[in-house]
Amino acid sequence: MEDRKKDHIDLAFKSQVAAPHSDSRFSYEPLMGSHMQGVLEPFPFLGKTMRVPIWVSSMTGGTALARTINTNLARACNEFGMGMGLGSCRILLEKEEYFADFDMRSIIGDDLPFYANIGIAQLERMLQDGTYHKLIGLVERLRADGLIIHVNPIQEWLQPEGDLLHHAPFSIVEEFLSLTKMKVIVKEVGQGMGPESIRKILSLPIEALEFAAFGGTNFASVELQRSTPEQQELFGPLALIGHTAEEMLGVVNEMVDSKQAIQCKQVIISGGVKTFLDGYYLTNRCKLPSIYGQASGFLKFARG
Amino acid sequence: MEDRKKDHIDLAFKSQVAAPHSDSRFSYEPLMGSHMQGVLEPFPFLGKTMRVPIWVSSMTGGTALARTINTNLARACNEFGMGMGLGSCRILLEKEEYFADFDMRSIIGDDLPFYANIGIAQLERMLQDGTYHKLIGLVERLRADGLIIHVNPIQEWLQPEGDLLHHAPFSIVEEFLSLTKMKVIVKEVGQGMGPESIRKILSLPIEALEFAAFGGTNFASVELQRSTPEQQELFGPLALIGHTAEEMLGVVNEMVDSKQAIQCKQVIISGGVKTFLDGYYLTNRCKLPSIYGQASGFLKFARG
Amino acid sequence: MEDRKKDHIDLAFKSQVAAPHSDSRFSYEPLMGSHMQGVLEPFPFLGKTMRVPIWVSSMTGGTALARTINTNLARACNEFGMGMGLGSCRILLEKEEYFADFDMRSIIGDDLPFYANIGIAQLERMLQDGTYHKLIGLVERLRADGLIIHVNPIQEWLQPEGDLLHHAPFSIVEEFLSLTKMKVIVKEVGQGMGPESIRKILSLPIEALEFAAFGGTNFASVELQRSTPEQQELFGPLALIGHTAEEMLGVVNEMVDSKQAIQCKQVIISGGVKTFLDGYYLTNRCKLPSIYGQASGFLKFARG
Amino acid sequence: MEDRKKDHIDLAFKSQVAAPHSDSRFSYEPLMGSHMQGVLEPFPFLGKTMRVPIWVSSMTGGTALARTINTNLARACNEFGMGMGLGSCRILLEKEEYFADFDMRSIIGDDLPFYANIGIAQLERMLQDGTYHKLIGLVERLRADGLIIHVNPIQEWLQPEGDLLHHAPFSIVEEFLSLTKMKVIVKEVGQGMGPESIRKILSLPIEALEFAAFGGTNFASVELQRSTPEQQELFGPLALIGHTAEEMLGVVNEMVDSKQAIQCKQVIISGGVKTFLDGYYLTNRCKLPSIYGQASGFLKFARG
Ligand SMILES: Cc1cc2nc3c(=O)[nH]c(=O)nc-3n(C[C@H](O)[C@H](O)[C@H](O)COP(=O)(O)O)c2cc1C
Ligand SMILES: Cc1cc2nc3c(=O)[nH]c(=O)nc-3n(C[C@H](O)[C@H](O)[C@H](O)COP(=O)(O)O)c2cc1C
Ligand SMILES: Cc1cc2nc3c(=O)[nH]c(=O)nc-3n(C[C@H](O)[C@H](O)[C@H](O)COP(=O)(O)O)c2cc1C
Ligand SMILES: Cc1cc2nc3c(=O)[nH]c(=O)nc-3n(C[C@H](O)[C@H](O)[C@H](O)COP(=O)(O)O)c2cc1C
Repeated sequence: MEDRKKDHIDLAFKSQVAAPHSDSRFSYEPLMGSHMQGVLEPFPFLGKTMRVPIWVSSMTGGTALARTINTNLARACNEFGMGMGLGSCRILLEKEEYFADFDMRSIIGDDLPFYANIGIAQLERMLQDGTYHKLIGLVERLRADGLIIHVNPIQEWLQPEGDLLHHAPFSIVEEFLSLTKMKVIVKEVGQGMGPESIRKILSLPIEALEFAAFGGTNFASVELQRSTPEQQELFGPLALIGHTAEEMLGVVNEMVDSKQAIQCKQVIISGGVKTFLDGYYLTNRCKLPSIYGQASGFLKFARG
Repeated sequence: MEDRKKDHIDLAFKSQVAAPHSDSRFSYEPLMGSHMQGVLEPFPFLGKTMRVPIWVSSMTGGTALARTINTNLARACNEFGMGMGLGSCRILLEKEEYFADFDMRSIIGDDLPFYANIGIAQLERMLQDGTYHKLIGLVERLRADGLIIHVNPIQEWLQPEGDLLHHAPFSIVEEFLSLTKMKVIVKEVGQGMGPESIRKILSLPIEALEFAAFGGTNFASVELQRSTPEQQELFGPLALIGHTAEEMLGVVNEMVDSKQAIQCKQVIISGGVKTFLDGYYLTNRCKLPSIYGQASGFLKFARG
Repeated sequence: MEDRKKDHIDLAFKSQVAAPHSDSRFSYEPLMGSHMQGVLEPFPFLGKTMRVPIWVSSMTGGTALARTINTNLARACNEFGMGMGLGSCRILLEKEEYFADFDMRSIIGDDLPFYANIGIAQLERMLQDGTYHKLIGLVERLRADGLIIHVNPIQEWLQPEGDLLHHAPFSIVEEFLSLTKMKVIVKEVGQGMGPESIRKILSLPIEALEFAAFGGTNFASVELQRSTPEQQELFGPLALIGHTAEEMLGVVNEMVDSKQAIQCKQVIISGGVKTFLDGYYLTNRCKLPSIYGQASGFLKFARG
Repeated sequence: MEDRKKDHIDLAFKSQVAAPHSDSRFSYEPLMGSHMQGVLEPFPFLGKTMRVPIWVSSMTGGTALARTINTNLARACNEFGMGMGLGSCRILLEKEEYFADFDMRSIIGDDLPFYANIGIAQLERMLQDGTYHKLIGLVERLRADGLIIHVNPIQEWLQPEGDLLHHAPFSIVEEFLSLTKMKVIVKEVGQGMGPESIRKILSLPIEALEFAAFGGTNFASVELQRSTPEQQELFGPLALIGHTAEEMLGVVNEMVDSKQAIQCKQVIISGGVKTFLDGYYLTNRCKLPSIYGQASGFLKFARG
């Protein structure tokens, strides 16, 4: 105890936090409750049973690292009761040899939600050339609970190897839903979505909307860092376009409040969620059943 | 005089203060009054007689330093007429040999308020195992005017050695009040309290509420600096939760204005009070009898 | 693909864009449309046919560099379908030998708008001494579509070699319009114009108003950098006077909304337009036919 | 001209001024007027005739430098038609040998306003011990137009050698006015005055109020820089108390608008006036006859 008290004196001067920095989202009521004891209650989400309201957002990782990263993430999910989305599984459609890198069901276990992932442009192509059943087969082989479709038109446009879309992503998703009974999650990749897109997608019978909002990893910015300084200057402003989780949450809640028809009944709040307090704050305010997700926040611990 | 004038020229250029920095809390009326001559009138507070409206907030200091610090603080109180709260006296419940470090009544003198101090978790334990009378004995031996209970659930939770609470601090205080006639002051330790907690505690017959508000020494942050970088990142946001003295004052005044039942009739405004002007401003606006307190502000002068 | 994915991981941590930086001017609707395929439709502007809504704003460049810069800019206009304003052609009124530096019609081609340029003070002098027909001759020899008049009273005043105006620029332009059928564009040089000036000039039968607004290259500041430190300190504040493109746009739209008489029917939005998104945003909101212009933004690529 | 144009290119990139920096106090109307030619009209102020609306605010300068500084300032006043206030003349009351340092009437000339200066504490003492006629004699020997009384209670209090006031400065001034017909200007020394003080002093028959507002040279801060680090920390916040010229102007104009009785009919707007544009802006908005003053702004040019 003496040590702790001595520390206090030395640290007190380094621990001055100025008043304007207080987190005004929360009211601190030290007199009103006791500490929580024990653990959270398990709860149903995405048709499975989770033990904490946390989602590991989709990340692909270069094939060499992919297995390590995915294995580490799946183990953490299993240990703590989180759900997990795979990064893009496109490579598996062509090269069977990478299957083991994504084959995480046995590690995460059967009780927790586990989803495959494909890009909207790839899905459009497979719908057009009639090969979309390969996706269904892939999800089955991975024993995934369903498919995440990431909708990323800015990233595709900025990316030299990117694909252009010929139809509105909304109608591509709709067509896919009409052809299969697979559970589908729709997400962006870090720019979020505006009100119109949110309203459209919540009106469809998808399993969940994942925000993948603006404010965290920015994929437009990732792509730009791979291009020339001229392109960075020219296209840099595109990386600043987007919608934050807080903004998107506002649109969702407003739809609920105004009793608009919503077929999608679950939400994964993600993109720029920096801390558990952010997640707690946002899920608490969400008027649809929700959990929160992080991608880069997990990545730093999953590589080693 | 010549020297002073020469200084003026050289210093004038270094003494430009930009308009936006003006302290808008005060109106300066140079034409309206003369300088105050003489000293402040003594006034009753916490049942004693103080000569300045200043409180030395509770600080424990590692046993080696504790005696020096407490002695210096008690001397200053005696000289200027301030009141003083001891830091946590928990160690005295177990180890009698530290008694002299806290035994400041003979130095501060009989006329000024002087309080012992214990944490809410310790109090809860002593109420539960029926040893709370030891606290009463301790206060008596210290010839203290009463007991400060510090309520610090975030700090306890962040601290590896911390104790978890099994009841709401409000009811622990209430139980203690029902068992003793001792004067009690309730405080936080640097995060302050939200409106609900303030309203509850002012409704109880305590001697005073000490704010220990957010904006100065932050004990959540002190504890975090003693932990690993991962924990600092993870729990860091908790250190930003809290309420400033200005916010807390607003709640107190609103209770007075709306004539809510208040049994606690005195307030020590503390936590982030940086200067005598802050203290002057806040106590002037407070609608309950009040003085202002500082902890770290005194610590820097009390160690040597 | 593996490479791209590996890049992603390394770059993800460098690509965190904080929520407050989002560009709130745009709503991003990733689900609602497909990528644009093909090219923009050509459209009429300033009596010619442009292929992109972009204007190369007037720049003179010291005679040695002028030819290189003008040639590069004219080539780019020809390739992409932009219009171009020459920098001040005053020197050509005196020294025929510089003609080739400005003679860009054969490079830019006949289909695109191409304008000569003169300062308001020079124009005032030529109207006074009856030599203004030389300007008409110059425009003809350059095979330009018309004349840009730059109105820059602050710059002229700050410039040691500057000319003072004896009449209001508005009336000088008006007189010139009454004497010739030449197409005229009126612009500032980087400070923009206030509401009164905008309203006056839009009421005249000019071909276009170019904003040359505050927020980009600042000519008052350019002139000041050529003067003494004392003058810089004294006159520096003048360089901060001006009106942004957004402010000026507000005045234009308000005139349209309130149905004020407008004879000038086209606008070149320029001055501080940093990126194509700025240009897109501003031209989209403009209620008169408009394109956007940049000067310094092109200059950096035109010198080499 | 070629040189100038080459400069332009190189400087253009250094002369980007971002839109948010624009000086929103002014509307720039480049089309609406011609350049002013010639000089300003002379105008009556403080009973004399000034040629520019500028006041050299009072500065004492250590006796060695005082003569140089005062002579330089008086010469500039004479050349450009400005008025001048001397710094504190207190030393002259005791030591006749410094007279020449302040004796500037022959340099500034008879047509321009020229004022002596004394502190309010000194004046109080002289009224009390009946020696105030010495002040009248001093003003006469200096051939000054009147006396500036600087009212600086914070500075006096912070200054080790400072004098404490026993009466409200307002009543001291009032008593002095009742005893003499001398023209009196009242000023602070860089903290300005609050609304009550302004209203009181404008109700008195003084020749002018000089703002000496907060935002420029700060005398509380000057005094603090001469004291110990502990005192600087303790009293530093006092240096931030004050009222800006803009605030004070608001009070003056409001008094005029609400037709309150005003006997003081002229105002010298000073304290934190950084540039001629600030001065132009403030005097233009003032509803009493006004000029603007600077102290430190002149000092840097007056020492050499
Ligand atoms: C390294 C990395 C790879 C990613 N790969 C994918 C992917 O393949 N598919 C996908 O839908 N999203 C992908 N994302 C986007 C994330 O799922 C997430 O939407 C985004 O990073 C925002 O969350 P954050 O701010 O918590 O990082 C990736 C993100 C990272 C950092
Ligand atoms: C070194 C140190 C030790 C402290 N120890 C205690 C303590 O034992 N009991 C307590 O109630 N508060 C304790 N505090 C909290 C202070 O009483 C006070 O509430 C807090 O520091 C905020 O005030 P400040 O901003 O003026 O420092 C301590 C503070 C410091 C700086
Ligand atoms: C190097 C340079 C030279 C310029 N010369 C002229 C000129 O001769 N005539 C003119 O009307 N404007 C001239 N301008 C002003 C530009 O046309 C334009 O109005 C101004 O630079 C603001 O646009 P920007 O922010 O895109 O640079 C010049 C600008 C630059 C950078
Ligand atoms: C070196 C110096 C000496 C000064 N001495 C006096 C003085 O003796 N009497 C007085 O009334 N004001 C004095 N002042 C205050 C100025 O008159 C003025 O009110 C103040 O500096 C604010 O103006 P500024 O921001 O333009 O410097 C002095 C100021 C300076 C910088």
